[in-house]
Amino acid sequence: METESFTFGPYKIDPRGVFYSTQFSYAMVNLRPLVPGHVLVCPRRDVKRFVDLTADETSDLWLTAQKIGRQIESYHKASSLTVNIQDGPQAGQTVPHVHIHIIPRKVGDFEKNGEIYDAIDAKEKALKEKFDPDKERKDRSMEEMAEEADQYRKLFI
Amino acid sequence: METESFTFGPYKIDPRGVFYSTQFSYAMVNLRPLVPGHVLVCPRRDVKRFVDLTADETSDLWLTAQKIGRQIESYHKASSLTVNIQDGPQAGQTVPHVHIHIIPRKVGDFEKNGEIYDAIDAKEKALKEKFDPDKERKDRSMEEMAEEADQYRKLFI
Repeated sequence: METESFTFGPYKIDPRGVFYSTQFSYAMVNLRPLVPGHVLVCPRRDVKRFVDLTADETSDLWLTAQKIGRQIESYHKASSLTVNIQDGPQAGQTVPHVHIHIIPRKVGDFEKNGEIYDAIDAKEKALKEKFDPDKERKDRSMEEMAEEADQYRKLFI
Repeated sequence: METESFTFGPYKIDPRGVFYSTQFSYAMVNLRPLVPGHVLVCPRRDVKRFVDLTADETSDLWLTAQKIGRQIESYHKASSLTVNIQDGPQAGQTVPHVHIHIIPRKVGDFEKNGEIYDAIDAKEKALKEKFDPDKERKDRSMEEMAEEADQYRKLFI
């Protein structure tokens, strides 16, 4: 895993935060997860829109998302999943690289269900800021993220 | 198409509202679309959670969603898509049958992006009420829905 490289739009991803990968897809922990276990599943290839994926990439991406969802929901003792793609800027996408949000859900975690999506939007902005060196920010450390990724990696051995 | 039958959780779906289908999946118009072109893509098999789908069903469902999204976005002159599964009751699912919301998005269509998901939640409730004979309601007529489905069907010939 250490020698592999992953890109997310124009950015290079630290492989310590990537906890699962296949020929076409990878899953990574989040800079600012909305709830514990909020992770992203992405195609390896740098494509902006869902429609840009080949059939092989599309199948692999969703089989990966299914596998990740099963394990992350169970690991966090959740009972549902919010599964979401902001496919294009008018849907709230900030980093122009297809990414599936997988968010474990529990009874009463958000007062109104829509709140989680406003929160996803805020997080989308944070994703972009993460890579903007001019922006001041208070993010999780890479060490904290790597530790979470280590936990998840064990689920897929 | 007329002789085929489609189920949605415990309910039977009027095939006039179904505008595309494959071996494993089907796409239907909505009782109360949030915006023009808001449609649902479902597996034919009556399964509650995304994780319950076989690999063949998962691949087919998302290849279908991709195809539907491309055409519906173009038809409605939109520029993005919201793609969402409320996977389980704690994520807002009301009818216990996997369904992907595909929603064409345009500049300025919702003031806060989260509003669209509160609206999806309201619509999820409407989906359930549709089939509840005790509930008074003001829905679109089947004729109106069939007409929309006819338009969409032409996109996939």
